[in-house]
Amino acid sequence: MTVSCPLSRLFNPRSVVIIGASDNNPWSGMVIRTLKSVGFSGKVHLVNKRGAEVMGQATFTSCRNIGEPVDAAFLAVPAAALEDALEDMADAGIMHGVVVSSGFAETGPAGAAEQKRIFDRAAARGLKLLGPNSLGSISLTDSCALSAMSLDLPILPNGKVALISQSGATAGLLTKQAYRQNIALSHVVAMGNEACIDLTEVLEYMIEQPEVRAVAIFAESIRRPESFLAAAQRALALKKAIIILKVGTSELTAEVAQAHTGALVGDDRVFNAVCRQYGLVRVYSLEQLLITASVIAHVGPLEQKGFAVASISGGACEIMADAGSSAGIRFTRFAPRTMERLKDVVADFGAAHNPLDVTGAALVKPEILENVLTALAADPDVGLLACTFDMASTPAQTNSFTLTMLDRSLAGLATAKCPTLLIEQTMKDTTEYARELLKKHAVPILVPGMDAAMKAIGSAYQWSDRMRTARTGTSTTVKPIAGINRPRSERETLEYLQSHGVPVIPARVVRSREEAASAAQEMNGVVVLKILSPDIAHKTEVGGVMLNVDGGAAAADGYDTIMRNVGGAAPHARIDGIIVSPMRSQGTELFIGIVRDPSFGLAIAVGLGGIWIEALDDTALRLLPVTPDEVLEMFGELKAQRLLTGYRGAPPVDLAALSVVVAAVGRAAIALGPELASLEINPLSINADKIEALDALATWSASEPTSQA
Amino acid sequence: MTVSCPLSRLFNPRSVVIIGASDNNPWSGMVIRTLKSVGFSGKVHLVNKRGAEVMGQATFTSCRNIGEPVDAAFLAVPAAALEDALEDMADAGIMHGVVVSSGFAETGPAGAAEQKRIFDRAAARGLKLLGPNSLGSISLTDSCALSAMSLDLPILPNGKVALISQSGATAGLLTKQAYRQNIALSHVVAMGNEACIDLTEVLEYMIEQPEVRAVAIFAESIRRPESFLAAAQRALALKKAIIILKVGTSELTAEVAQAHTGALVGDDRVFNAVCRQYGLVRVYSLEQLLITASVIAHVGPLEQKGFAVASISGGACEIMADAGSSAGIRFTRFAPRTMERLKDVVADFGAAHNPLDVTGAALVKPEILENVLTALAADPDVGLLACTFDMASTPAQTNSFTLTMLDRSLAGLATAKCPTLLIEQTMKDTTEYARELLKKHAVPILVPGMDAAMKAIGSAYQWSDRMRTARTGTSTTVKPIAGINRPRSERETLEYLQSHGVPVIPARVVRSREEAASAAQEMNGVVVLKILSPDIAHKTEVGGVMLNVDGGAAAADGYDTIMRNVGGAAPHARIDGIIVSPMRSQGTELFIGIVRDPSFGLAIAVGLGGIWIEALDDTALRLLPVTPDEVLEMFGELKAQRLLTGYRGAPPVDLAALSVVVAAVGRAAIALGPELASLEINPLSINADKIEALDALATWSASEPTSQA
Repeated sequence: MTVSCPLSRLFNPRSVVIIGASDNNPWSGMVIRTLKSVGFSGKVHLVNKRGAEVMGQATFTSCRNIGEPVDAAFLAVPAAALEDALEDMADAGIMHGVVVSSGFAETGPAGAAEQKRIFDRAAARGLKLLGPNSLGSISLTDSCALSAMSLDLPILPNGKVALISQSGATAGLLTKQAYRQNIALSHVVAMGNEACIDLTEVLEYMIEQPEVRAVAIFAESIRRPESFLAAAQRALALKKAIIILKVGTSELTAEVAQAHTGALVGDDRVFNAVCRQYGLVRVYSLEQLLITASVIAHVGPLEQKGFAVASISGGACEIMADAGSSAGIRFTRFAPRTMERLKDVVADFGAAHNPLDVTGAALVKPEILENVLTALAADPDVGLLACTFDMASTPAQTNSFTLTMLDRSLAGLATAKCPTLLIEQTMKDTTEYARELLKKHAVPILVPGMDAAMKAIGSAYQWSDRMRTARTGTSTTVKPIAGINRPRSERETLEYLQSHGVPVIPARVVRSREEAASAAQEMNGVVVLKILSPDIAHKTEVGGVMLNVDGGAAAADGYDTIMRNVGGAAPHARIDGIIVSPMRSQGTELFIGIVRDPSFGLAIAVGLGGIWIEALDDTALRLLPVTPDEVLEMFGELKAQRLLTGYRGAPPVDLAALSVVVAAVGRAAIALGPELASLEINPLSINADKIEALDALATWSASEPTSQA
Repeated sequence: MTVSCPLSRLFNPRSVVIIGASDNNPWSGMVIRTLKSVGFSGKVHLVNKRGAEVMGQATFTSCRNIGEPVDAAFLAVPAAALEDALEDMADAGIMHGVVVSSGFAETGPAGAAEQKRIFDRAAARGLKLLGPNSLGSISLTDSCALSAMSLDLPILPNGKVALISQSGATAGLLTKQAYRQNIALSHVVAMGNEACIDLTEVLEYMIEQPEVRAVAIFAESIRRPESFLAAAQRALALKKAIIILKVGTSELTAEVAQAHTGALVGDDRVFNAVCRQYGLVRVYSLEQLLITASVIAHVGPLEQKGFAVASISGGACEIMADAGSSAGIRFTRFAPRTMERLKDVVADFGAAHNPLDVTGAALVKPEILENVLTALAADPDVGLLACTFDMASTPAQTNSFTLTMLDRSLAGLATAKCPTLLIEQTMKDTTEYARELLKKHAVPILVPGMDAAMKAIGSAYQWSDRMRTARTGTSTTVKPIAGINRPRSERETLEYLQSHGVPVIPARVVRSREEAASAAQEMNGVVVLKILSPDIAHKTEVGGVMLNVDGGAAAADGYDTIMRNVGGAAPHARIDGIIVSPMRSQGTELFIGIVRDPSFGLAIAVGLGGIWIEALDDTALRLLPVTPDEVLEMFGELKAQRLLTGYRGAPPVDLAALSVVVAAVGRAAIALGPELASLEINPLSINADKIEALDALATWSASEPTSQA
């Protein structure tokens, strides 16, 4: 099934070699056992430096001696022997491999340096390697593996979920958990230290495999975010879901992760914005990672229709209603035609709610369940149909009634044109007995537990929505402008923004009390005076700002006052004049903050001014660039959004115009190039239909020196 | 073990009778089977109207014929035969029973009426009954049962968790789930329609049983909230936890619950406040209900110390850090002495974080795990210590290493003086094989899954905190005042509040333009004029209010204007004069709203005025009465709390004084008696140290007519 990709030889090799095989080396035994469990049919060569027999099999003393082409290697040598082993495999033309050897970056700076040296050399020779410190990969649908993860489990057929983990122990644990919950995996990859192949590259491979419908990721950090996001866009285009459990939601975890892998955990809020923007499904527990991946792999993209579910337990209906609503699921309001059909099925359905309690009546007449599901399946607004069913774990718990209910449920669900699910009320393991029953009755999926199911279904709907709205290409290609002059002062920054389509407050630079007076008269109202100097960053501190200056005479006096203040406080500053601008005091104030996230790059936050930013941290966040439509979506996320839409009789803000301005600020920030650390507009004044940046500040990661007044 | 209680005969009978027993009646067979499964050693009598042999056993034709005392009955008769059966059992002196018969309130109004008639009669005869429509109860620790819930499971010894469910199907389901997760239950009770014994009465019984450490409740509605809350207080005093999954968190569910049981689902936010106030632990899934109950039953009340956990998986540590932080767990920052000890254990522990990753080193030297846990156990700020352990499900998965790790973990944990837990990384069933291993190694508890464990531990800490702060008696006994005059107008309401210790704005009633002028001069500033009339509810609409009246002359003119306005708009209203009060325009405004919840009675909401109430619904809620300390806690829950504590240089509000005022408003509301529907103060003005109610309104559930202007 594998589509030819750069990593096909690694994940779907026709022949393999275990380097460092020995009866004393536990890794070699484990790799051989795993190859057997997956039913690998290709050749397995062994390399032992001394040529000793291993597990009864003859060995080669080096890869060069094998004498036939080999697709991939498993390197189980001590750290000190790794460099030679890599040379040997490269010499033999074996370009792909898994390095289980440990003692590198995970041990500290010295190990990291040694790792870099060895893997730089390997890269120079063209090797593509997983690890070091990787437990390898298993390709269940392709019956091959290069892995020291013990897989003492039968293999479930038709795996649609690929699992990638940055923790090897967690990869093994999740593989077992998936089997217990009857979730068929297609691949399992334990990344290790990612000295060469990283998570993104494996993700790129997985989404191209036709059998893979969802990729489940356990991640500590994303090393090449741009490529990762490109892969996320590609996955959306291919309608493949990426489900991710990313640790590091608490500050505490960042510490722990550092201790664990030396990986830097990015800011969690930025990652949330990334998930929203790129259609990644974020989950918060190991159980939910697998179940959500399995549900989405099964149902695929959902139409914009509601969810309907029936149960013979009223308690189950209530729980699903609560949990489903919390998960953002929209339950179908049944059409009149559906209500009529339901009345035909059960005369005394007073009011048919959704989730639909079919009541104990179905215990007496199991056909009721089938007929109810058939009626729901025909409702035009049902996009996903489900039914609860509690699988028996042992023969003793099974009676003909259980099986009749199962078949009736399946028959009812089978009439639906939309995707369907069977859901267990609580999370439990699938026993071997249950597994046989599921097979015999051809149950395509049985989701373990209503709570997990509702969360997964909520995610499936959100992912499907996102697929409809997300960009699948880079929507706006904004590039940094080479050799741009860095705006330094407030005025330069505002002028720079103006040149990029951002409306800014009018300003006149005046150089005498007379000019100040006439500027104020022209502006026909109350004005603000501010000192203009490349040498003064903090204008207020040197007495360089006057607010609420009313009229020409006051402006003339203000001019003198400021010049006197500044002359005293910053006698050596170069003065270019004084800026006169209209005073804006009413209306709404928007805060726009752009910061560079260490891993994902420029992110933009918008929020209302004052307490909304300062105390409540009420902001919406996105990676740049943003389109005006995305900005509108951001406004919708603000708690204070009511203040934008005409609160207490205030005129509503022209959100469309505002969103265009915010998007322009974003583009202007990108154009400033990679050394821009932050760009802040605080505030952007919104007064009826007039939008104006009043103040702006840019900071730089490699700053040219400016003297501070 | 049972303590003698009113319901002891029902839940711990020495002899029982099954009324309506018959070979054709599936219930009787199920009840007999359950009696056998629990090992009931008392006599089991059968009553069959025709005296036919049932399951090979002789029967009586009526209870009166049994001829010896019987403690409790199981009534498995058709609805139509129930009345006679109840008479018969009462005649025979059998006063306790379970009614499984259905066809009553759950079918609609006619069934409800019939149920009321039959159960009123039964109550008059002194019968205490579970049901109708109840699957009965199982007392596992007492080896007795009157239940049609099939219990085809071995019984786990030393049950500490009592389970009460308002849904019979859910009771059965949870019993099986508990067994699968190795959680030992003490009792299982399915409530049915609660025509006689209700959930609260069963709860009262359970918390008095010495073996019961936690009660797990699945609830649709609480019928006698006052007694329920008294039971909750009693439970806190006894240090027994009540864990509750209450459906009805979404509007949708309220509909569903109505369809299901006819029970009214109270307002969910009030119930949240109730849980916070009375130390109930609220959970949101069936899995979490059992796991949380099991964890709290095991650990008991926790000291005010942090949580520490170690794992050999770095991934597990990261997940626990995130999930634990979300659950509000405080992880211990290890003391310097602990850090030293850890360094002795593993030389290269660079920085020992918590959760503590013991790393793969423990795979080589399992004693590291024991030593690490011993070091953590000695830390003075560790109040709960845990370790992850993944139990093998089959012998094939078990090796000597697994068992060594288990024993080392247990040995390390055993050195702790605080409670300890073993935690599995993912939620899974306990296989029979695993159960044997747990028994053999004397594992007291193995929590299934880190995510569920962190939530349960968070709840355990919150419950323990609540036990330290919650009232265990009715702190302030406030009683309604008999024959109180209902305040009707704004002025009457304010005066009523003033007489109950609530500061209100000064006011003078004036009856001429001269009096208005002198009142304004006395108040020495800007004033407000408002018409005073028992016949005018909406003063603004008749032009009866003037704000910002500045000085004596303006007040005199204002007097005339208002009188002219009102004379035109409400010519027949009785006018008592005009109220002159100082105008308050600055400072902070608090909203206090008291409403009567249909089930839990008066609840008080506080919040800041304006957008905080109107758009953000930013309120904190409690049942009345509240103490000033509880009011302070409420302020702490407000998103806008920063506005109270000196935002942007504003002087901080005197919260202590404010909390006393809010508590006084609550007492004043209670004193108004049971027909008060709502009492609102909007706003309470807070200006530096001056707190004043500016406006107030009371509404009544059985209102005396007032003419509207």
